[in-house]
Amino acid sequence: MLSAQSFAIIGSGALGAYYGARLVQGGHDVHFLLRSDYETWRAKGLQIESAAGNFSLAPKQLNAYRSPAEMPKCDCIIVALKSTDNHHFDSLIRPVLGPNTAILTLQNGLGNEQKLADLFGKERILGGVAFVCVNRVGPGLINHTSHGLIRLGEFLGGPSTRAQALASAFASSKVPCDATDDLTTVRWEKLIWNIPFNGLSTALNQTTDQILATPQGENLVRRIMVEVIAGGRACGATLDDNLIDINLDRTREMGAYRTSMYLDRQAGRELEIEAILRQPLEAAKERGVSVPAMQAVYEMTCMVDKQFLHK
Amino acid sequence: MLSAQSFAIIGSGALGAYYGARLVQGGHDVHFLLRSDYETWRAKGLQIESAAGNFSLAPKQLNAYRSPAEMPKCDCIIVALKSTDNHHFDSLIRPVLGPNTAILTLQNGLGNEQKLADLFGKERILGGVAFVCVNRVGPGLINHTSHGLIRLGEFLGGPSTRAQALASAFASSKVPCDATDDLTTVRWEKLIWNIPFNGLSTALNQTTDQILATPQGENLVRRIMVEVIAGGRACGATLDDNLIDINLDRTREMGAYRTSMYLDRQAGRELEIEAILRQPLEAAKERGVSVPAMQAVYEMTCMVDKQFLHK
Repeated sequence: MLSAQSFAIIGSGALGAYYGARLVQGGHDVHFLLRSDYETWRAKGLQIESAAGNFSLAPKQLNAYRSPAEMPKCDCIIVALKSTDNHHFDSLIRPVLGPNTAILTLQNGLGNEQKLADLFGKERILGGVAFVCVNRVGPGLINHTSHGLIRLGEFLGGPSTRAQALASAFASSKVPCDATDDLTTVRWEKLIWNIPFNGLSTALNQTTDQILATPQGENLVRRIMVEVIAGGRACGATLDDNLIDINLDRTREMGAYRTSMYLDRQAGRELEIEAILRQPLEAAKERGVSVPAMQAVYEMTCMVDKQFLHK
Repeated sequence: MLSAQSFAIIGSGALGAYYGARLVQGGHDVHFLLRSDYETWRAKGLQIESAAGNFSLAPKQLNAYRSPAEMPKCDCIIVALKSTDNHHFDSLIRPVLGPNTAILTLQNGLGNEQKLADLFGKERILGGVAFVCVNRVGPGLINHTSHGLIRLGEFLGGPSTRAQALASAFASSKVPCDATDDLTTVRWEKLIWNIPFNGLSTALNQTTDQILATPQGENLVRRIMVEVIAGGRACGATLDDNLIDINLDRTREMGAYRTSMYLDRQAGRELEIEAILRQPLEAAKERGVSVPAMQAVYEMTCMVDKQFLHK
């Protein structure tokens, strides 16, 4: 059993709050950076309604901060910001960085690790993909409906004792977690789903069952997935063709699911187009892969982005 | 000057009513098949508010019919049905067909002439493309805001005295009209605009200025136009690359224009996907042209079609 570790959670929205609270429960020393819920956490604590067991943390169990300057240096910084906030990396992360601090991003899409590496040094960086349904349903109230697996690995690839130690910290905190030697493959596996379903749901204002309700819709999803797989392979990911059928079957079981980007559009929030759509598209194009359907989905998502940010 | 001709207008919506009324004004013998406005026309006649001059026709100037069986055989049948009603061709047109009757379709998209040719013989068929903005704004009230040019020609191609005579009949009725030897080119010229703007406006619920508001939107429109031009050329059309810039410039001048298919979607009416999107797509694919952006636009339009008709 590894000894307890210290964590800084940068971005305590639903994802950061849920995983951070699990680590607290697991006996680790966790420090949360948060904005809107700070007063609620200080007054009433944090409640988690979870498919893996409800629990709550009292104010005295929560180390909550409004500014990173107040936070201690930690063994590991977990980045759980929305990727649209990546331009705040330097101001939010540098104050918490000790000489040996690792940085684990659990954010969506591609490019987050690279940006962190450019700022803080590539040897510090790990990435993780969270397969989880979790929402903030009110101040200090998180609803975790299903799944929860984290697959994490070194940005530079290969095995490491650090990745193993982090996986153990999660696993001993009721969070299933695998350390992978091949983060690239894990990232692209998730993109096979994220690119067609986040993109089309946002562009067309549709739930996942509506996207698959016509043969034309299924055909378009399949064509996008073929391109994502080709793009991922060109980037070094190991991806089997049967991931298409596996993803379609799972999605049909999800019913009228609203993707995160669809919910962001409905709420008038900024869209994670850069990490989920543009970076994978550019990565594929740079390697000479033909990706016209990915390109169209990227373009259409930009076209419906409320603020027309992508000029 | 050619002598007066007799016309049957099959489908007296905005387009059929406007052009038919102009032919009445030009001294021709015109017979209108119509449904919803029949009682209004019989009681109050037809009013045309037109950029080319307002006018009205009294009930006694209008030969209006609710059934084609009541109509006389005419020199020319003008088909102005929405292409989603093409399955009614046989029942609506055959009763009006004399031994030498020509059939001119002014409908949108591809495939209308072929379907008429299959039913009634290819030597009868002419096609025309109407460049016009005209709407039915109330019972017996048509609003013609701009343009009006018809370019018409033989389905089988080449020059004909019949096409010339029809062009003269229109031209002497305040309708600018060219006879063309090359209907294929004229059809595809219009598709260069119709495919991207009808398709994207319908899929994304956007006006034409919104479609062009981002560089990604303009880029997608351009990529679709490149594919339409390649498809048209493979089908024998003569299309210059500068049609892309010409169409984009004209569209920017149109402001917040609502395409016909967008209006159909808003009103919950059937969409002209078959003629405007699917037939050109299939024609290009059959000839080995790569049309992934056209394919995506076709698929997405099917995906938002309210009735999910395209299963």
